[in-house]
Amino acid sequence: MAAVVSIDPRTGHTVEAVAPETTTEQVHHLCAAALAAAPGLEALGRAGRATLLRTLADALEARRDDIVALADRETALGPARLGGELTRTCYQLRLFAEVLDEGSYLEATIDHAGDTPMGPRPDLRRMLLPIGPVAVFGASNFPLAFSVPGGDTASALAAGCPVIVKAHGSHPATSRLVFDILATAADKAGAPAGTLGLVHGVQAGADLVAHPAIRAVGFTGSLTGGRALQQIIEQRPDPVPFFGELSSLNPVVVTPQAAAERGPAIGAELVGSFTLGGGQFCTKPGLVFVPAGPDGDALVDAMTEAVRDSAAPVLLNQGIAAAYGRITTDLAHAPGVQVLAHGPQPEADGFRAAPLLLATTAADLPPQVTEECFGPVAVVARYTDTADLFTALHALPSSLTATVLRGHRETSLPQTITDQLRPRAGRLIYDAYPTGVAVSWAQHHGGPWPSTNSQHTSVGTTAIRRFLRPVTWQSAPTDLLPPELTDDYRGIPRRIDGTLELPR
Amino acid sequence: MAAVVSIDPRTGHTVEAVAPETTTEQVHHLCAAALAAAPGLEALGRAGRATLLRTLADALEARRDDIVALADRETALGPARLGGELTRTCYQLRLFAEVLDEGSYLEATIDHAGDTPMGPRPDLRRMLLPIGPVAVFGASNFPLAFSVPGGDTASALAAGCPVIVKAHGSHPATSRLVFDILATAADKAGAPAGTLGLVHGVQAGADLVAHPAIRAVGFTGSLTGGRALQQIIEQRPDPVPFFGELSSLNPVVVTPQAAAERGPAIGAELVGSFTLGGGQFCTKPGLVFVPAGPDGDALVDAMTEAVRDSAAPVLLNQGIAAAYGRITTDLAHAPGVQVLAHGPQPEADGFRAAPLLLATTAADLPPQVTEECFGPVAVVARYTDTADLFTALHALPSSLTATVLRGHRETSLPQTITDQLRPRAGRLIYDAYPTGVAVSWAQHHGGPWPSTNSQHTSVGTTAIRRFLRPVTWQSAPTDLLPPELTDDYRGIPRRIDGTLELPR
Repeated sequence: MAAVVSIDPRTGHTVEAVAPETTTEQVHHLCAAALAAAPGLEALGRAGRATLLRTLADALEARRDDIVALADRETALGPARLGGELTRTCYQLRLFAEVLDEGSYLEATIDHAGDTPMGPRPDLRRMLLPIGPVAVFGASNFPLAFSVPGGDTASALAAGCPVIVKAHGSHPATSRLVFDILATAADKAGAPAGTLGLVHGVQAGADLVAHPAIRAVGFTGSLTGGRALQQIIEQRPDPVPFFGELSSLNPVVVTPQAAAERGPAIGAELVGSFTLGGGQFCTKPGLVFVPAGPDGDALVDAMTEAVRDSAAPVLLNQGIAAAYGRITTDLAHAPGVQVLAHGPQPEADGFRAAPLLLATTAADLPPQVTEECFGPVAVVARYTDTADLFTALHALPSSLTATVLRGHRETSLPQTITDQLRPRAGRLIYDAYPTGVAVSWAQHHGGPWPSTNSQHTSVGTTAIRRFLRPVTWQSAPTDLLPPELTDDYRGIPRRIDGTLELPR
Repeated sequence: MAAVVSIDPRTGHTVEAVAPETTTEQVHHLCAAALAAAPGLEALGRAGRATLLRTLADALEARRDDIVALADRETALGPARLGGELTRTCYQLRLFAEVLDEGSYLEATIDHAGDTPMGPRPDLRRMLLPIGPVAVFGASNFPLAFSVPGGDTASALAAGCPVIVKAHGSHPATSRLVFDILATAADKAGAPAGTLGLVHGVQAGADLVAHPAIRAVGFTGSLTGGRALQQIIEQRPDPVPFFGELSSLNPVVVTPQAAAERGPAIGAELVGSFTLGGGQFCTKPGLVFVPAGPDGDALVDAMTEAVRDSAAPVLLNQGIAAAYGRITTDLAHAPGVQVLAHGPQPEADGFRAAPLLLATTAADLPPQVTEECFGPVAVVARYTDTADLFTALHALPSSLTATVLRGHRETSLPQTITDQLRPRAGRLIYDAYPTGVAVSWAQHHGGPWPSTNSQHTSVGTTAIRRFLRPVTWQSAPTDLLPPELTDDYRGIPRRIDGTLELPR
């Protein structure tokens, strides 16, 4: 059995063998354990699972230094970013504890028996229940926020679903460390054995998705990887929901007024955004529409200068570094594309990549520039008028985000641009940059294909909804109802006979 | 181009040619028109679309007699049932108007800018927006409630999505009539041209699902049909959500106490339920667990007697009648299955099928009896103890419903049975029968695969959610926000900084 190894991306060298690849038989045992754990995890109730989530957050924070140091050795993302990522993950676990306390997520709904224009209606009571064990695929670029812990795991546990994570090959040692911390804490908080599981290796991931005990799959990764998992799911006797976050270009439009008012500042900020984290954010702005003319020129000059001054970041793994080299070479040679600037070529070892800025025209946008490329590269597309711009926007694939940088109090053109962008994005950003995704009740991190393949995704409180399914009780005796659906319960918002009622 | 014909199932004869099959080019034009209509339909706003839905209901009711007569000629479901079905559809249209008025469905959520443990958070405002044009596949068995009008169409229009319906071949003339009524009424209510479309023919259905303008597909039909559409979707460059309602066995468990108290009455009622509508309901109880012993015998005797007295219903079409003959023959010859009773063999022409009652033992349940069979057939499985029963329940596929018939005030065994059935069904019914699905806020008509492939389905108010997607506005100027997301708006429930607030 091949070993899963931990590689230092700063040197490209293997540091340690972390674990053997998980065998098909081991995957089966983990899935069976997860299935067996499901009733107990549900039986903890909302309060018990809220305690579980808070205990997990406390346990991660107690080992902050160890986790950040190991994650930095495996990903080179740096202690500041990784510390922030851990903070985010702990915040998210606690936010889902609040979601459980608040209880709206159950969508408790009661229609008492009565007459309707359709005739007599029986007593109907509906709420959401956990869907069963969930497979989560760790992402390369977020070892702490979209991997063993993160939006998928936090929301699935909150829902009452056991979780088995497929560790990403970019950070297997971090995955193991964090898993051990979480599993110990879960046990301490009274979660049944089997609530959490961890597998390593590509085949183990495929085995997981095909296993009958798995009831849903959460995935953050490439379009190709997502399509492959979807195919495995379609071949199951019982296809299960697949929630993928796959690919995003994140277009940015700078209005002429914005360029006139603060072009150079925007230029510098854009480079900061697209090189942040080595350009390995799913919300990296990959394509920036800048007006033709001197104001736009000044903006682009500032970008050019900033890129020339940018050191080569260390990328997460050899695959990403190789793809960066291949795709940026193709991009630079695409018809109508010119290289504006690149950072100094890296001299040190490891998976390093020089930042790169390319230019093209919106009127004649080559299709290559509309595809996501991981790493510190962005394309500037110059537009002469809104007709130019809108033709280009129409040709874009959907993204997680779309950004409008506008002039002071400018609303008319931003509105028209928004009308064009809105069908193609899940988050519309004004006068800010798409990197940085706050976890909150109103957040949405998703969009039409290929950015995500589902309406609800792994960020924000509605992430929980992916791992729940509705059940309606018809004419059930009170003794057989969940407490939240009994008449006297008052602890959560409920809809009674069509009217939403707050807790009393 | 082949013509789509209307057949009288009572005679098996063609009555008229309704329309040519819709060509690929015509499908394209309809899809382009639907896409063009989408912004105008959204711009009607919630109030405008509520008026639209009420206008559609009024228009259908104004033509009630014509609609019911034509639907009866094409489906032989009878004027009483079809009249009720039309009432249901009108009620549902008006219920979605209420959903729009009430506004919770938008999930309007505002997080004001502020500090968090993760650092400063920007202003984030989220609500659901229409997904775009929707393809709806009419069902054979509900010409008025799951076809041109019905849960899919009503919920999609409510969401703000144009709808193109693929007419079912069992009732093309009814589909055309009802479409004409709806299209005229929609025009009168101010909906843009292209809001509604209709296609005929299998290839047109495939073309529709493959068309780039279509953003979601609603389907009620067979597992095979659903799998075929899913494959077309997976081959799109941009796979879209597919909402299928596919297959359901609807197990019923009679407790020993229930059998003792009212076995013969239950027997007669069960036959009424599984032969209702020719046994062509997706909620038909296909498998009934009855205790061994004299109380169960009395129940089964009553079923036997009722089946012998049941006339052969007319089935919807030749395909269903042929499948009924084939599947019931296989069932009757399955190992361990015996024929208890059948109704008189039909002598008249048309697609008629004699009701059939079969028996087997729960301890040795043949796999054939766990598959859905459309038409007036049910299988009784006798159990000697709960071990027997639970082993059988574990082997069942998931269903839309599961029913427990219990004794007076009996709760202990019903609770244990519920625990077994709950993972396998979307609606749990007590002391009633699964046929008959009220449209209401608390209804759910779905379940794990193969009953449905998604969490939200075409029945009940949450049907709307399938055709919406979230969008978050970050740091947007007030002028660029939808009215429901501005600070001063008070007309709908919203979540503000984590707290759910009712309208004021």
